[in-house]
Amino acid sequence: MLKKSEITAHIDHTLLSQTADIDQIKAICDEAVHFGAASVCIPPAYVKEAAQYLKGAVPVCTVIGFPNGYNTTEIKCAEAKQAIDEGAKEIDMVINVAFLKDGRYDYVEDEIRRVKEVCGEKILKVIVETCFLTEKEKMFMCKAVASAGAEYIKTSTGFGTGNATFEDVELFSRCLDGTNVKIKASGGIKTFEDAAKFLELGADRLGSSSLIKSLI
Amino acid sequence: MLKKSEITAHIDHTLLSQTADIDQIKAICDEAVHFGAASVCIPPAYVKEAAQYLKGAVPVCTVIGFPNGYNTTEIKCAEAKQAIDEGAKEIDMVINVAFLKDGRYDYVEDEIRRVKEVCGEKILKVIVETCFLTEKEKMFMCKAVASAGAEYIKTSTGFGTGNATFEDVELFSRCLDGTNVKIKASGGIKTFEDAAKFLELGADRLGSSSLIKSLI
Repeated sequence: MLKKSEITAHIDHTLLSQTADIDQIKAICDEAVHFGAASVCIPPAYVKEAAQYLKGAVPVCTVIGFPNGYNTTEIKCAEAKQAIDEGAKEIDMVINVAFLKDGRYDYVEDEIRRVKEVCGEKILKVIVETCFLTEKEKMFMCKAVASAGAEYIKTSTGFGTGNATFEDVELFSRCLDGTNVKIKASGGIKTFEDAAKFLELGADRLGSSSLIKSLI
Repeated sequence: MLKKSEITAHIDHTLLSQTADIDQIKAICDEAVHFGAASVCIPPAYVKEAAQYLKGAVPVCTVIGFPNGYNTTEIKCAEAKQAIDEGAKEIDMVINVAFLKDGRYDYVEDEIRRVKEVCGEKILKVIVETCFLTEKEKMFMCKAVASAGAEYIKTSTGFGTGNATFEDVELFSRCLDGTNVKIKASGGIKTFEDAAKFLELGADRLGSSSLIKSLI
């Protein structure tokens, strides 16, 4: 199995609670630096302060259209722009799940493309909220994320009715073979054993609020 | 007890599921017209279509900074502006609960004031997410909502850890005595008996996804 220190390098150390105060956000930042996390993933309203606090020691990641995904495309683009202007290096966006369920495939893919244009060189991860999707919809989303040029497909918000599963990461891994799109597994990853398995199955990032906390 | 037809006139008939398709949104609109609801409360991405479908028969209400409240003030203002431009007559915004917990009282009140400026004559309801607040914070929010000039204080998003309670509506009613601010109770209101009691205790609006559905 991978060593814990190898695993922490793949973790987006995450705090997206509605009630997190600035001391908790700073603690997340300190822990991410200490354990060598891939990024800190925090609410948009804290991006500016976190970026000033971290001074580039760890990349700041934030969430847009989060967690329900039914904001307009214009707002998702505006959120991404402000976050990047304020220091975010990575953007985790939620797709319009409702429009996907409704068969508005062009809209869903075009929305990702438009947010990616705003992101430029910054990393875009596309949260598809697997708990609500059929296998066919999951496979469509792999193609759409690749076509729209985003860097990652991400399983879950952590606010839905289900979390990352090994089966979904395996499915994404098969569907994305031959593309440049990487996989982020997120939501409900509580043990380093599970974390290692997600990485072995093809995930490159792990979103977790508890893994690094468990090392303290 | 109030008659059901008297109660439905106070209901914001609500569908904020992540997966609601356009047929479900149109059904909500039809039901709101048929039962004389106060408004339909739907996701931002559906405002334009719902407004075109309803042609003013019932006001369209939408949600901003929803449900976690930790979007930036600029984004909440941009969301309100787009929603109004696309036909929304009522805006339900979530406060920055995290900043309230952190004691950033001026920020929280100023944010409401700035969104209200964008809303102009349109109705602004301020969701304080009571399940996360102390009694002192609830009382502060009554003052802040009144001072910032919003029309309503609203208890809950329906996505938090708790819903509207009789005790909170009584507390709001006492705190808001002498102001123009009205009360919207929302989240978990499942029976007309409870709905009537919320109205008797001082609520003027009720957010519910199930009350009108139960009449069909």
